[in-house]
Amino acid sequence: MHRSILISSLVLLSTFNCQSQDYQGDQKDIDQILKNIETFSTSYMNADYERLANSYSINGKILPPGADIIQGRQAIKKRWTLPEGVVILNHKVTPIEIKVVGEYAYDVGYYEGRTRRRDETEVSWKGKYLIVWISEEGDWKIYADAWNQIN
Amino acid sequence: MHRSILISSLVLLSTFNCQSQDYQGDQKDIDQILKNIETFSTSYMNADYERLANSYSINGKILPPGADIIQGRQAIKKRWTLPEGVVILNHKVTPIEIKVVGEYAYDVGYYEGRTRRRDETEVSWKGKYLIVWISEEGDWKIYADAWNQIN
Repeated sequence: MHRSILISSLVLLSTFNCQSQDYQGDQKDIDQILKNIETFSTSYMNADYERLANSYSINGKILPPGADIIQGRQAIKKRWTLPEGVVILNHKVTPIEIKVVGEYAYDVGYYEGRTRRRDETEVSWKGKYLIVWISEEGDWKIYADAWNQIN
Repeated sequence: MHRSILISSLVLLSTFNCQSQDYQGDQKDIDQILKNIETFSTSYMNADYERLANSYSINGKILPPGADIIQGRQAIKKRWTLPEGVVILNHKVTPIEIKVVGEYAYDVGYYEGRTRRRDETEVSWKGKYLIVWISEEGDWKIYADAWNQIN
């Protein structure tokens, strides 16, 4: 009995320790956005830049640190394309808040990953992002994407 | 006649040379958001951090470069508060796109400014931002604010 209370408490504690996730909107929309976030990471790890760029609206904008605003799917594809020999070993996105508002949604969360450079050294990184999604032809595309590192 | 065509062409050219501005929504809402953007800059230049923090929703989030996500008006106020002797000589925000979507709006643009440090040296900076605004009690507040430098 005491043990089961202890275990329950630990489970509860670990739940509350997790980063809270607040998703508001039709489950269908939230599920699609979460699926597209997964696809983004998979595409990046697979160096499938065509598919990665397809995560964005044709008029999408990205706000990468240390660069101007980059607009349009083709320009965005070019920006994400890594030099030959650079590999994304890991990429994970953890949205903490998604809210669907009509044909748009905003999404705040964290990203993290690991890169292997051409000289075989590896580097890990972690940051946070704010995304505005747009509903297009029954799918959700990234309309605006700003991010920066935590450290 | 030729001169007037030339002048018209020059006016047209100078218009197209400007950063395009695309504001969509009720004029009343757009005007309020633009006014609040001005108030933000004025508050920052006046070191009026209470008023600056009041630009944000009570549950607002900021995503400053090199830090974690900061949530809540009080924590945001603390983050913006500069040490004694540091002065914001200039702060200007140029939104390039604002779109009102129901009770929310997104806003993409540039910020620039100039700081005088305690040692009297000055530094200029320029960056870009993505903001999600929320309509609250007849006003517009910043709900989420991500930015990073251009260079």
